[in-house]
Amino acid sequence: MPEGMTSGCHAAGIVHLVGAGPGDPDLLTVRARRLIERAEAVVYDRLVAPEILALAPAGALHLDVGKLPGLHRVPQPEINALLVDLARRGLEVVRLKGGDPYIFGRGSEEAEHLHANGIAFDVVPGITSAAGCATAIGVPLTHRGMATGVRYVTGHCQGDAPLDLDWRGLADPATTLVIYMGLAQIARIAAALIEAGLPATMPFAAVQSGTTPRQRHRIGTLAEAGGIAASFEDRGPVLFIVGHVVALADSLAPPRAGAAAGEDRHAVPALA
Amino acid sequence: MPEGMTSGCHAAGIVHLVGAGPGDPDLLTVRARRLIERAEAVVYDRLVAPEILALAPAGALHLDVGKLPGLHRVPQPEINALLVDLARRGLEVVRLKGGDPYIFGRGSEEAEHLHANGIAFDVVPGITSAAGCATAIGVPLTHRGMATGVRYVTGHCQGDAPLDLDWRGLADPATTLVIYMGLAQIARIAAALIEAGLPATMPFAAVQSGTTPRQRHRIGTLAEAGGIAASFEDRGPVLFIVGHVVALADSLAPPRAGAAAGEDRHAVPALA
Repeated sequence: MPEGMTSGCHAAGIVHLVGAGPGDPDLLTVRARRLIERAEAVVYDRLVAPEILALAPAGALHLDVGKLPGLHRVPQPEINALLVDLARRGLEVVRLKGGDPYIFGRGSEEAEHLHANGIAFDVVPGITSAAGCATAIGVPLTHRGMATGVRYVTGHCQGDAPLDLDWRGLADPATTLVIYMGLAQIARIAAALIEAGLPATMPFAAVQSGTTPRQRHRIGTLAEAGGIAASFEDRGPVLFIVGHVVALADSLAPPRAGAAAGEDRHAVPALA
Repeated sequence: MPEGMTSGCHAAGIVHLVGAGPGDPDLLTVRARRLIERAEAVVYDRLVAPEILALAPAGALHLDVGKLPGLHRVPQPEINALLVDLARRGLEVVRLKGGDPYIFGRGSEEAEHLHANGIAFDVVPGITSAAGCATAIGVPLTHRGMATGVRYVTGHCQGDAPLDLDWRGLADPATTLVIYMGLAQIARIAAALIEAGLPATMPFAAVQSGTTPRQRHRIGTLAEAGGIAASFEDRGPVLFIVGHVVALADSLAPPRAGAAAGEDRHAVPALA
């Protein structure tokens, strides 16, 4: 039961839409960690790292909406209804979203549904994958003289619709471009960006499961994007970064970034 | 002295470039909070909220590089040299940056200087102001059918140079546009965006000192940007958000967002 709610006749639940960040539990916000540790129900999907789920109380309901037995994801309307149902049972619910709930997380659709049903909710921002993964491989998203801004897009198509992006606007060499959920489309995206004017030699990075012990990354050029993407097995989300700033990874990368799985990716000395 | 460094002949210092997030100490990452709490020296500037500085040990060196007695900021090369000097004295240094060190924070310039001087460093990402402030007023940065992506630019000019942005590329109604450090230029920016094709009625939000007890915000249209900006006194950083998603603040805003200073901005029940 939520704190401070003990005096009412019927205890009302609440849903916290919580950004789980890029994967490393140390990159949760202080508020997110506290909410997870006291959750009565945790609703999560495949983008949330197991290290973070492990922080929830063993006695909490754990509800995986990332896949059903047939490997299909639970449809969004069912997730929305589940959150309302759990809150109406009086539970303190943590809806965990990879990264930030309001950046490609569909969190606002869930928030709208909770609002429409009169359920109390709040939203806790998280470190989005772009920031977490870029930093983990030594790439600043902006840098004087290289990138005056940064842009996040998704490479995910709705249904069978073709990717409909403003290629000419995206092909801005002074803006770092980060592509979420683009694994299936990155070869097409790279080709379209080059056709729209970005140099084929523009530095390009792919980061899988960034900030977790399973982190892998590869750096190359935009022309090599398709080949690089094809070298990743389907073992975790892959983020793509396009821009001059990627070249800085040579000097700014943490000493062991991209090293074998399980190694600490941070500079010496190790942090507690 | 950093942990794990006690066995060498000369203890080497380290610099942690730490994102302080948007202002609310609860939105620090777990790692950032731990590093601040054990820092031997804290180097900060005016974008770091006092609530966060208060977490550093009383005995730590506190170095404000945000302003000198004459109200000028310490030049970047002097900050770079200061960080090297502190690390060479063997200190565990936390360089606190508002938001994320690698998004408009000049953190990568400091990282380059540390690298060039052989100083150990690492970087801790933070919740950038765009995510923190947008969430605090109930605005999702992306939303199905409204914004397929998000873009961060700075309105800060270097020296006396005019703002040189790709207005036509920025005037994309399907992308949420967030403008950092644009208070002095927002009227010009809004006019340029409208001239480049964005509707004058496009929803527009300004958020000052977002996520802190001093948070204030106003919502209007792009055509009203200059007037809205002029209504803010110079009491904290102001972030601007342009896009259809701003209209969602009506239904998704935390109940008391934008209420009188000092009030809790969160949905009931209050969090511990």
